[in-house]
Amino acid sequence: MSFALQAVREHLNQEIAALPFGQHPPELYEPIRYLMQLGGKRLRPLLTLLACHAFSDRWEPALAPAIGVELFHNFTLMHDDIMDDAPLRRGEPTVHEKWNPNVAILSGDVMLVRAYEFMAQVADVHLRKVLALFSQCAAEVCEGQQLDMNFERRATVSEEEYIGMIRLKTAVLLGFALELGALIGGASEADQHRLREFGVSVGIGFQLKDDLLDVYGDQEKFGKQVGGDIIANKKTFLLIKALEQAEGAQATELNSWLTRTAFEKEEKVQAVRSLYDQLHIRKQTEQRMNVCFTTAWQALEQLQLSDAQKAPLRTFTTQLIGREF
Amino acid sequence: MSFALQAVREHLNQEIAALPFGQHPPELYEPIRYLMQLGGKRLRPLLTLLACHAFSDRWEPALAPAIGVELFHNFTLMHDDIMDDAPLRRGEPTVHEKWNPNVAILSGDVMLVRAYEFMAQVADVHLRKVLALFSQCAAEVCEGQQLDMNFERRATVSEEEYIGMIRLKTAVLLGFALELGALIGGASEADQHRLREFGVSVGIGFQLKDDLLDVYGDQEKFGKQVGGDIIANKKTFLLIKALEQAEGAQATELNSWLTRTAFEKEEKVQAVRSLYDQLHIRKQTEQRMNVCFTTAWQALEQLQLSDAQKAPLRTFTTQLIGREF
Repeated sequence: MSFALQAVREHLNQEIAALPFGQHPPELYEPIRYLMQLGGKRLRPLLTLLACHAFSDRWEPALAPAIGVELFHNFTLMHDDIMDDAPLRRGEPTVHEKWNPNVAILSGDVMLVRAYEFMAQVADVHLRKVLALFSQCAAEVCEGQQLDMNFERRATVSEEEYIGMIRLKTAVLLGFALELGALIGGASEADQHRLREFGVSVGIGFQLKDDLLDVYGDQEKFGKQVGGDIIANKKTFLLIKALEQAEGAQATELNSWLTRTAFEKEEKVQAVRSLYDQLHIRKQTEQRMNVCFTTAWQALEQLQLSDAQKAPLRTFTTQLIGREF
Repeated sequence: MSFALQAVREHLNQEIAALPFGQHPPELYEPIRYLMQLGGKRLRPLLTLLACHAFSDRWEPALAPAIGVELFHNFTLMHDDIMDDAPLRRGEPTVHEKWNPNVAILSGDVMLVRAYEFMAQVADVHLRKVLALFSQCAAEVCEGQQLDMNFERRATVSEEEYIGMIRLKTAVLLGFALELGALIGGASEADQHRLREFGVSVGIGFQLKDDLLDVYGDQEKFGKQVGGDIIANKKTFLLIKALEQAEGAQATELNSWLTRTAFEKEEKVQAVRSLYDQLHIRKQTEQRMNVCFTTAWQALEQLQLSDAQKAPLRTFTTQLIGREF
């Protein structure tokens, strides 16, 4: 029942490194190899492999579709980076910066096609369901990205709207990755659904944790610039709750920071963080996050698997959500 | 054996008009409905339906995948229009102009997902092959678009490189549309291949005809601005042949027109057309085009079908390639 995480990740990385994705013209395929080689934790395909292994003691049958999951995820990064005009991805120039936006559009398109090709590498008996689930997930991720862009232009966003958006943009892909592995591993329909719900709940909780880390994280451990969301007025869970609850002088101060165009970054981060503190936003966010993780663990417990079979998924998830402040 | 072209096209249009493609957020799905409603001849899905009907006397089983073909085609238009910075499509604002480029990227992405969903609406026995053929075609169309962009930046392009590019960018989708219909209609593998070759050859010939019409077409009958390719220095088959063959004063004059930034449009069109005339470019293009159409007709003749079964495909194609100068 043991799942050799590091060895499997290494195998996955070697498989991905050996894939050409296509040859000619190089402008189309080189950006795919570039982005797929920038690293990342391979979280999503590992979830697929872990789920398959939990039900069948083998991860190999899920390897090709797991690569499809990673290709799809990187396709969304390539196109999202154009839309967000992001200069860097994992510390290196984004594809649209290193080449140009047209190359990033077209390379991304062919990545989505290749994702379908890898996804189709499942047994005939699973093909139709895998395709249907993947297409639904892919459309939902696009819906989430569009909602995210819409919310940035809106004055207010409700808590439930925000949770709905991150569910689509981030969480459904984790849910799909797990459901896919469970399906290939021979899980019952009920267990496939439980693992999807587990993934969706973990995904939402994980995003809330990311929102928290931006404000309260340790710069040494956090991969990104602490305070980046505050500087950019990003409508995170924390800002949404603060906008909802701030009144009087607090509301005036918060809105003043949101509308100011010239400011000292560190001063703004400290001022907004202080407002969050006064409003107990950290605690509220942690509570909501913990509801998600509790729901996730409950779904995991209900799986028709032995404790030993559940253990690798549990360990991996614990590490994943256990990032320190 | 008769195929009621107008009635089937009308049915297809009604089906497409009734499709929501998705609901929320509207920014994602409204551009899809907009572009799919701009009209067009529905050439590609009609080829799928014609091919299916030729082998089975029914087109209905091919309707959903035929819509998938049209969705895919319109996805390529939505993304190509961003890359080409095109203001108009079928006389109306392009999606990136009417909304913005981010909306056009993301709506296009979800169109490709929906195309796969419609494509998957075939019998189980055909599903794997349809997906493999569609994915290959989709990647090739992307390769063709990238080559087209590359060629615009290059000083010279050979005739065979150009034919290879239009084969990928334009012709393989016609080939796939026909092969798909033949497959669903129960054609033999040999006939599926013949119909694909027919479609690819028609597609290349059709693009060469389009290149010719830009220079020698009747403005009354040609949908676009006659001379538009000349004004834009577009590397059409005609310009490629002229660059290959012009010497001395003719080469000097041609290059002078290609490098001039300020000019009278009509003067440039007439001057370049006159150079084409001197070099007998029209005749050479017509010869190459006719080779394509001859190859296409030969493939059609070899189909294991009666003359009556072939008739609708033959009539449709004759009308298609018979556009007057």
